Amino acid sequence: MKVAIVGTGLMGSSFAHSLRDNNLASYIIGIDKNKENLSTALELNIIDEAIEFEQIASREDIKLIVITIPVDKIPMVAIKLLNNVRPGQIVMDMGSTKSELCEIIKEHKNRNQFVATHPMWGTENSGPQSAVKGAFKGRVLVLCDTDKSDKDAVAFVENIYSTIGMRITYMESEQHDMHAAYVSHISHITSYALALTVLEKEREENRIFDLSGAGFESTVRLAKSSPDMWTPIFMQNKYNVLDVLREHIHQLQILRRMLEKDDVKGITESIQKANSIKRILNR
Amino acid sequence: MKVAIVGTGLMGSSFAHSLRDNNLASYIIGIDKNKENLSTALELNIIDEAIEFEQIASREDIKLIVITIPVDKIPMVAIKLLNNVRPGQIVMDMGSTKSELCEIIKEHKNRNQFVATHPMWGTENSGPQSAVKGAFKGRVLVLCDTDKSDKDAVAFVENIYSTIGMRITYMESEQHDMHAAYVSHISHITSYALALTVLEKEREENRIFDLSGAGFESTVRLAKSSPDMWTPIFMQNKYNVLDVLREHIHQLQILRRMLEKDDVKGITESIQKANSIKRILNR
Repeated sequence: MKVAIVGTGLMGSSFAHSLRDNNLASYIIGIDKNKENLSTALELNIIDEAIEFEQIASREDIKLIVITIPVDKIPMVAIKLLNNVRPGQIVMDMGSTKSELCEIIKEHKNRNQFVATHPMWGTENSGPQSAVKGAFKGRVLVLCDTDKSDKDAVAFVENIYSTIGMRITYMESEQHDMHAAYVSHISHITSYALALTVLEKEREENRIFDLSGAGFESTVRLAKSSPDMWTPIFMQNKYNVLDVLREHIHQLQILRRMLEKDDVKGITESIQKANSIKRILNR
Repeated sequence: MKVAIVGTGLMGSSFAHSLRDNNLASYIIGIDKNKENLSTALELNIIDEAIEFEQIASREDIKLIVITIPVDKIPMVAIKLLNNVRPGQIVMDMGSTKSELCEIIKEHKNRNQFVATHPMWGTENSGPQSAVKGAFKGRVLVLCDTDKSDKDAVAFVENIYSTIGMRITYMESEQHDMHAAYVSHISHITSYALALTVLEKEREENRIFDLSGAGFESTVRLAKSSPDMWTPIFMQNKYNVLDVLREHIHQLQILRRMLEKDDVKGITESIQKANSIKRILNR
């Protein structure tokens, strides 16, 4: 199978590895406005060929077109690809937000050839040089609004994701975005805020990082993630992110007030309640 | 060398492993009010013998007594041990806060035989069954107020920590507690608050954790940490923790307001600033 990947960054390149390592793609074509990423992906043999976005339509042997670019750019690219899609071709995206995309493409006459997907995998790094082999194995894949896609197209995409080892779950796009805000987007906001908090303190205390241990590193690891990817996610998922952010600030304020009032019992009970996250993380 | 470890939980047991694996201790005596931990440590051969706290004084061949218990219990135990310490014996603690301890023992006539230490290592797990071999290797060790301890005692403790692979740094106890609030204690607070935020949402949305990916797990991992250890740390380091908590809430509120006002430029710049945490984490 010939596959075109629009966006040869961390996600697209890791997906290319998975396709190849599972014998799902015989030939991978890369497309990217970022010419540095594109040539690196070519050098690293992540893609077999680099072409311009406009050339995709003329390459009739492409079976699958995958969009792996920042979420604010996905809807327009999806529309352009659907405008020229051939019978039997499938277009899919891998973005972290889904409502706006699914709204924009809703009435397109070729909507049925599009499958909206979100593989729950990522790292704080960027670019094809950071691509990870076996990246998606064991992780959750969300398919959104599958009733809007052809059954064959959904089955085709399901087969790819199953083969590379993902556990598939199904959601409406609105439901997906709300859930993603709680279990993914908020982690990034708190991590950024924590980094900013400590960097702020560093201005007066230059030895502040001498003590940074493993706990700190795991909590702020996500703060290394790029704004190119995350600003659009926060903007597109603004209302859900604000909901969870308000609740998170509220929880921090409760803990703060308990600490101010020496409420040992309250703090202990809050920690015990928070500990029950174990049952989710360990399952 | 014969060593007594008061507190056979995660920390004491991991330290026992390190002592043994580096031929620093020939015989390890365990003391613990928690009889389950004590018998587990004995079964797992982490300690050679279990005795009562009151028996320590009568065992004259003990060279080093290590206190690895929750920080609210350390000062009183330290005083009791110093009351009966023999010439040449050394007492040290491994607690996460230092100001209160150092204040309490300040005028004890045997203060010079005490060394205040904080190895920056830990996991979210508890008990001797969670002990980790080679735990402290490559991590930072803080020695506090070393001018109050005998030079020989400090050199003795430095040698142990160097041998097990730690990088030693020196601080005043007040400075230590402020720094620890920023790079360790706040990570735990945000992690607890994040867990509470998501658990709160789960009450109305039972599929909320279907999507939890690796980002979420690394951010809330610390929320599994026990209140027995952490409530006393927050209480003892209350003013520093409140300082950093207020700043952290402030940073989250700034991000919230930027998101509410669609301030794309502001969010992007904040993320870029947060990204500079890389230079600290990667060094």
